[in-house]
Amino acid sequence: MSRETLSFPPTSIPPLEPYLPLTSPSPSSKPHLTLTYATSLDASLSLAPGVRTTLSGPYSKSMTHYLRTRHNAILVGCTTALVDNPALNSRLGSITSLDQQPRPIILDPKGRWDFTEDSQVIRLAAEFKGKGPWVVTKRGGETKERGELLERVGGKFLVLETGEDGRFKWGDVLSVLGEQGVRSVMVEGGGEVINSLLIDPENRLVDSVIITIAPTWLGKGGVVVSPSRQQGQTSQLKLRDVSWQPHGEDVVLCGRILRS
Amino acid sequence: MSRETLSFPPTSIPPLEPYLPLTSPSPSSKPHLTLTYATSLDASLSLAPGVRTTLSGPYSKSMTHYLRTRHNAILVGCTTALVDNPALNSRLGSITSLDQQPRPIILDPKGRWDFTEDSQVIRLAAEFKGKGPWVVTKRGGETKERGELLERVGGKFLVLETGEDGRFKWGDVLSVLGEQGVRSVMVEGGGEVINSLLIDPENRLVDSVIITIAPTWLGKGGVVVSPSRQQGQTSQLKLRDVSWQPHGEDVVLCGRILRS
Repeated sequence: MSRETLSFPPTSIPPLEPYLPLTSPSPSSKPHLTLTYATSLDASLSLAPGVRTTLSGPYSKSMTHYLRTRHNAILVGCTTALVDNPALNSRLGSITSLDQQPRPIILDPKGRWDFTEDSQVIRLAAEFKGKGPWVVTKRGGETKERGELLERVGGKFLVLETGEDGRFKWGDVLSVLGEQGVRSVMVEGGGEVINSLLIDPENRLVDSVIITIAPTWLGKGGVVVSPSRQQGQTSQLKLRDVSWQPHGEDVVLCGRILRS
Repeated sequence: MSRETLSFPPTSIPPLEPYLPLTSPSPSSKPHLTLTYATSLDASLSLAPGVRTTLSGPYSKSMTHYLRTRHNAILVGCTTALVDNPALNSRLGSITSLDQQPRPIILDPKGRWDFTEDSQVIRLAAEFKGKGPWVVTKRGGETKERGELLERVGGKFLVLETGEDGRFKWGDVLSVLGEQGVRSVMVEGGGEVINSLLIDPENRLVDSVIITIAPTWLGKGGVVVSPSRQQGQTSQLKLRDVSWQPHGEDVVLCGRILRS
């Protein structure tokens, strides 16, 4: 499958720059985490789980591919990997070497992602059009055969303990990525992953947020971005340093989580 | 209670103008309907039903009061009237006569709105700071005593049949308002009223949409704007002629419903 290369206008970079990871971050700090997604006016990522839904326009697409080049790694949950079969590379035309591609990270505590050599992210890595994925799983979630497939394309399993709820703790995920030399990670989805990062105290790990909003309603029943409330919670989770950037039909919102 | 007067910068008017009712509309057409509301990033109007939640900043507030002067009437549902005790007038400092105030319309099919002379909208009408409200109800929803109170402040009941679901049909509401000389109406809330206008075919009655989005998440459990889907519906409800206008921390989205 031949897919178009994309370009991102240099004039669009300065408004995004304050929200992007430093190119020379302090090696001791946790990786910079950028949370990015596109929703409808009713905060939906898609019409239903597993239904790919085109929301945003061409600017948002090329911005995403630009942002991918500005992070060491891009991270998705296993549901996204399963249902979207995503490429998780950057198709920006200005990329000249594999070094400029982000590392795909798939969070898969239960070993549900049944990738093969035909999965896009594996195939692209085999063709040197993307880096080999790192699959974060808990002990028992990895298999020898899949581990070998990952290693053939330059990827690997990273084994991590889960909490009592069967999920990874975000602090642990960032620690293990930091130990592997990852200084910046862009979290792209899906709904469960994004919502888990917006609750307190996990949202303290989020350094910046880049959200595209498309002028459309998907209606009730979609995959909604909205954090669960803690018991009795009546406070809002606000952004600070807010910038709204209209592009075509969509708007891009950049900000940082306001610490209460 | 003395409340501040507001001002709206004249330079902010031209971007809104294309979405506002004509000042000399054709008397034969249905009233121009502008749908306007403010939400969080997770599409909530408030933290919970009956909980007034400050979302948007001062620009949005003064814009709302400006928009009210540009419509013959402003309309809310009875839940909003009950829980918010809203003023439903314009506090724009430039207003010099009662003629410039919009007519408050309360949709109250079941006669649930238990207003008294202390209700804000009644008190303001008695003080000539707003027009007397028109309460749309079905036969039996009006009482003699309340009818007299409304008439004392220049308001009245409008009696209208409901459908089998106990709700008014939007076409009927606009017809009865049109018969009363209303050429433009701004629908302000609450959630149930807004959602009922976004479903098909009711959304065909909406001429323009003006939405303020604040950079905050209220979390699951809020009063959400998201239309119910018809059975099997997989299409989006899109806006056309879209304009995004950043103001302070918020963005204002103007558009028209795209007919599919």
